[in-house]
Amino acid sequence: MHSIRQAEARNTALHAAKTARIAIESVTPQVEAGRFAAKCLANEALEVRAVIFTDGHDQIAASLLWRRDGESSWCRVPMRAQGNDHWQAWLAPDAPGRVEFVIEAWQDLYASYHYELKKKYAAGVPVHLEVQEGEQLLREIGSGAPASLAERFVELLTRFADCQSLDQRVAVLLDPLTSELMGRAEHRPHLVRSVVFPLDVDRQLAQFASWYELFPRSESGDPQRHGTFSDVQRRLPDIVAMGFDVLYFPPIHPIGRTHRKGPNNSLKAGPDDPGSPYAIGSAEGGHEAVHPELGSLEGFRELVDAARNHGLEVALDFAIQCSPDHPWLQQHPGWFSWRPDGTIRHAENPPKKYEDIVNVDFYAEAAVPELWLALLEVVQGWVEQGVTLFRVDNPHTKPMPFWEWLIAEVRRSNPEVIFLAEAFTRPAMMARLGKLGFAQSYTYFTWRNTKQELAEYLSELNQSPWRECYRPNFFVNTPDINPYFLHHSGRAGFLIRAALATMGSGLWGMYSGFELCESAPVPGKEEYLDSEKYQLRPRDYHAPGNIIGEITRLNQIRRDNRALHSHLGFHTYPVWNDNILYFGKHTAERDNFILVAISLDPHQAQEAHFELPLWEFGLADDAALEGEDLMNGHRWTWHGKTQWMRIEPWHLPFGIWRVRPVR
Amino acid sequence: MHSIRQAEARNTALHAAKTARIAIESVTPQVEAGRFAAKCLANEALEVRAVIFTDGHDQIAASLLWRRDGESSWCRVPMRAQGNDHWQAWLAPDAPGRVEFVIEAWQDLYASYHYELKKKYAAGVPVHLEVQEGEQLLREIGSGAPASLAERFVELLTRFADCQSLDQRVAVLLDPLTSELMGRAEHRPHLVRSVVFPLDVDRQLAQFASWYELFPRSESGDPQRHGTFSDVQRRLPDIVAMGFDVLYFPPIHPIGRTHRKGPNNSLKAGPDDPGSPYAIGSAEGGHEAVHPELGSLEGFRELVDAARNHGLEVALDFAIQCSPDHPWLQQHPGWFSWRPDGTIRHAENPPKKYEDIVNVDFYAEAAVPELWLALLEVVQGWVEQGVTLFRVDNPHTKPMPFWEWLIAEVRRSNPEVIFLAEAFTRPAMMARLGKLGFAQSYTYFTWRNTKQELAEYLSELNQSPWRECYRPNFFVNTPDINPYFLHHSGRAGFLIRAALATMGSGLWGMYSGFELCESAPVPGKEEYLDSEKYQLRPRDYHAPGNIIGEITRLNQIRRDNRALHSHLGFHTYPVWNDNILYFGKHTAERDNFILVAISLDPHQAQEAHFELPLWEFGLADDAALEGEDLMNGHRWTWHGKTQWMRIEPWHLPFGIWRVRPVR
Repeated sequence: MHSIRQAEARNTALHAAKTARIAIESVTPQVEAGRFAAKCLANEALEVRAVIFTDGHDQIAASLLWRRDGESSWCRVPMRAQGNDHWQAWLAPDAPGRVEFVIEAWQDLYASYHYELKKKYAAGVPVHLEVQEGEQLLREIGSGAPASLAERFVELLTRFADCQSLDQRVAVLLDPLTSELMGRAEHRPHLVRSVVFPLDVDRQLAQFASWYELFPRSESGDPQRHGTFSDVQRRLPDIVAMGFDVLYFPPIHPIGRTHRKGPNNSLKAGPDDPGSPYAIGSAEGGHEAVHPELGSLEGFRELVDAARNHGLEVALDFAIQCSPDHPWLQQHPGWFSWRPDGTIRHAENPPKKYEDIVNVDFYAEAAVPELWLALLEVVQGWVEQGVTLFRVDNPHTKPMPFWEWLIAEVRRSNPEVIFLAEAFTRPAMMARLGKLGFAQSYTYFTWRNTKQELAEYLSELNQSPWRECYRPNFFVNTPDINPYFLHHSGRAGFLIRAALATMGSGLWGMYSGFELCESAPVPGKEEYLDSEKYQLRPRDYHAPGNIIGEITRLNQIRRDNRALHSHLGFHTYPVWNDNILYFGKHTAERDNFILVAISLDPHQAQEAHFELPLWEFGLADDAALEGEDLMNGHRWTWHGKTQWMRIEPWHLPFGIWRVRPVR
Repeated sequence: MHSIRQAEARNTALHAAKTARIAIESVTPQVEAGRFAAKCLANEALEVRAVIFTDGHDQIAASLLWRRDGESSWCRVPMRAQGNDHWQAWLAPDAPGRVEFVIEAWQDLYASYHYELKKKYAAGVPVHLEVQEGEQLLREIGSGAPASLAERFVELLTRFADCQSLDQRVAVLLDPLTSELMGRAEHRPHLVRSVVFPLDVDRQLAQFASWYELFPRSESGDPQRHGTFSDVQRRLPDIVAMGFDVLYFPPIHPIGRTHRKGPNNSLKAGPDDPGSPYAIGSAEGGHEAVHPELGSLEGFRELVDAARNHGLEVALDFAIQCSPDHPWLQQHPGWFSWRPDGTIRHAENPPKKYEDIVNVDFYAEAAVPELWLALLEVVQGWVEQGVTLFRVDNPHTKPMPFWEWLIAEVRRSNPEVIFLAEAFTRPAMMARLGKLGFAQSYTYFTWRNTKQELAEYLSELNQSPWRECYRPNFFVNTPDINPYFLHHSGRAGFLIRAALATMGSGLWGMYSGFELCESAPVPGKEEYLDSEKYQLRPRDYHAPGNIIGEITRLNQIRRDNRALHSHLGFHTYPVWNDNILYFGKHTAERDNFILVAISLDPHQAQEAHFELPLWEFGLADDAALEGEDLMNGHRWTWHGKTQWMRIEPWHLPFGIWRVRPVR
């Protein structure tokens, strides 16, 4: 027994002696140790950090290796020690798509040797033996070096042999050129390599974009006439003028007739009621088709091209449910769930039943993989029509492996495509959808109203695990959400929410009507009265009291200031008033530094002392900053840390200031 | 090309449809996703948590499966949903050793069905179809159930068939016994399993212990006579009376003569100077031997047994360096590093050279695995002599894989053995040593003096990743550290540091002389004058001014109060004085709730208002708590949240109160 244990110990020791002597820990950015991709942007420097250390006092070196998905060779970037075992390197992928990186670390024998020799020589300690050891080391490192360096090694050893004195030899050994050659010799004892960490590289629009949502069918300007793609085309200049980048449509597909909903979600539709566009599919076609009253597929394509010419990209809704009239029910009954009496299973929220839609069954025998491929084909078909963004309806009610697969497949050929997750559910699923590949996500923003709620939420989104996987798109309203706060806030309330969204995140969205301060609710509910989901709602976009001017200015400020191109870098600063949210955002270099103060009170004036964050510029409390009001262009100089503000909501319920050190 | 992509997409979809539909995230406790073991205690309930969720509204179920290392079958514990996708289960291993667990989750079809049927039935919705579907489900689940349940399934289906009405059938379907049977049927669609998470189960002494350190050679009471193990045996009753559990000795092995150090680390030793016990090895033997002047191996064994009879366990130093006289240099020259001139490489800190010790080379050709096995044999040899704890000298200068291997090997046969890491280095390595298997660790405690430093450090150790892998042993002094704070603090300073250590962590340690308030330093240095490392230091342990009474009381309070058996559960509470550290510790059930206020000022009285944490008991601000001064037994009732304290260091620089709600 005893000798068996000894033999076992010998084996485990031999194994242990081959395991990593150097530790690589706390690699950022990463999501679940490389299981999912962290997000980053093309052409934007990405800082990769790790904690790397080994036993004792030997020096180590480390590299970041990265490559595009599918490439076989790695690009190597040296990592730099930042103190306290932290190491850092930068990479900057030049195009969207999947990238992966690993970290390598090894013992840097020559660096250790160089450090010791230098210290001893400077202290006047005899170094004869050290010089002998140095020569051995040069030979050892040279013997394994790439052939391309052979000549330089011969040259170095000759130079060393030609030395006339110990001091000359020391000079050769301490020569920076010698160290440089040793560094290139690929001598890497105790080499360790981290797991592979994937990155999803997106274009900038994934992180910085202003979305405008409208129902094309309401754009005729005439309550008697169904709007068309041509009507939308006429509105493009106005939308672009407001500063939006993305034009988003709810589903544009044929609408079912069976159990069609009438105005205000009533169970009976009249003969002329258009129905909910979310009841997708009719005899005229399914997810691949266009609702005939909107126009033709060619008309849609023209609209997409016209939008693109205006600098606008088009986002489509991707809602997987079907109306009972969807062609798939006949063509692919095996993709749905059927009941013992032969009827189809409707969407339910017991005891409620939604009779105008049915859900597909992703794991039905006939659905794997045919349904999955059909859905992929739907998305790819719209991509071919020029659609570059998809707002996905209720992704949390569809399987997670489906999304991971679908998004990867689409982005394999079209890495420019951006998916926005419309999930309003529990936090774990919200984060997970980001990990699965959704570039953007709806958020809890609409239900965060107090200073504490807003500050906490924005801070949370700035921290791990959210910061690596989740880009929040702050929608101020949606066809489903008419926020309680706006029901009685008046115009100032709309300005408050617009400022919070535009300044809080790089991504924000607005559903048409918001600019007109529409807020009439179904009594007591967070829903719009006479919701556009069930009827046409033409609008006078120039009605008095609109906030188009302010929205235009906010979007312009966003464009002009890099600090506002993301939700990251959010910091609150002291202000002595619980009705004022006061925060800053700045670029890493602090060459763009924005301060934002938003009163959360749409009715009364609010005043407060607040602190100018002089310390962020390394300045003393009595120093000065130049300020510029970005809403009106006024400029001044602030002296000293403590300042005072007054916000009058009937004038403008917020202030946005760019600050700079005084030159 | 297009068809190739389609075929690829089909394959990836088939693959994706087989990957986990259910997510298991954020499992605790765990260290680096299962790469290392998290720490826990035998016979103490351990809470395992995870975030588990899936798409849609289907219900899921989850189990915790665990087993001892080497066992083939799992023990299954159901997990309970705690809301917001958080799940929880408890496990309680009954003995030290390695344990592993995994989490399983699956779709609970019957639970989903039960929920829907109940809702619809209660709402009066027709449920004929649902009842048919229910019967189908019973049959489907029954068909895959273990044979042992066959009879019960037959019985159930018969009962169902015998029903005379729909209502009766519904009653059978909603019967809790039906649900119970379905739960036992092992029907687990979409089953997913987490990675394996290892746990290191220790006995309680790993987390709760008071260490007393002494040099046996100083225990003769006579400066002219070298102390022996018998002398130590005579001191055992006093050490036990003070409340210590562990008696720790610096190395007890033969001491080298070559380059032996003299008093105060001088380079020349006189003929009678005993030398540093850390220069291990001489002609009389190496790490396996006992220094002859201390006694024999039998004498040591007797001391260990005597200590055990007093309730004290013995800890030995494990210091791997060798004196130049160590037998291994002759026997195993290949375990060391040699220079071009044939001399041995000494330990160095360039340009300084430590000529009394040499280090082994763990990766030398001849050392793998022979040196590793020899070191394992050393440790196992002392375990055979009854040593159950090892304080490891400078583990951070030895390879990490070596420690992971050595500790695992020792604990495989002797899971009761506890290793304490004496690493004073950067934080990443300190944490890593805990991950590798060290049950306890030295800390930065000795250098944390201000209220902010102490509160931050204790809070950090209470949080991940520290809380899972690192048990801090707060030494108030060591032979190497004579803290600056104590040089001029007088007796009150010693009481302050003793209170901080004993109340702050479940583990604390004291090196002899502390109880006598010894603090004479090498001028300007954090070292003891006439350090015991280089000479004999007999002491009068009953010298006036000693703090033996207070230390005894503190150790007794620790024993009596479970809240003090760990560093976990530390919370600071408001006190309006920056010289007073005020915190609480309590058991999960709050049946043991301790408040501690320690003045950090050894010279002046300190006064302050402070808050009684009534909210921790769910009490209003004007409620009352019963208080008990655990140092003197006084009892009283505190009324209201805001209270006042005054601490007089010349009397006692701290207060320790047990509080309870008024009955």
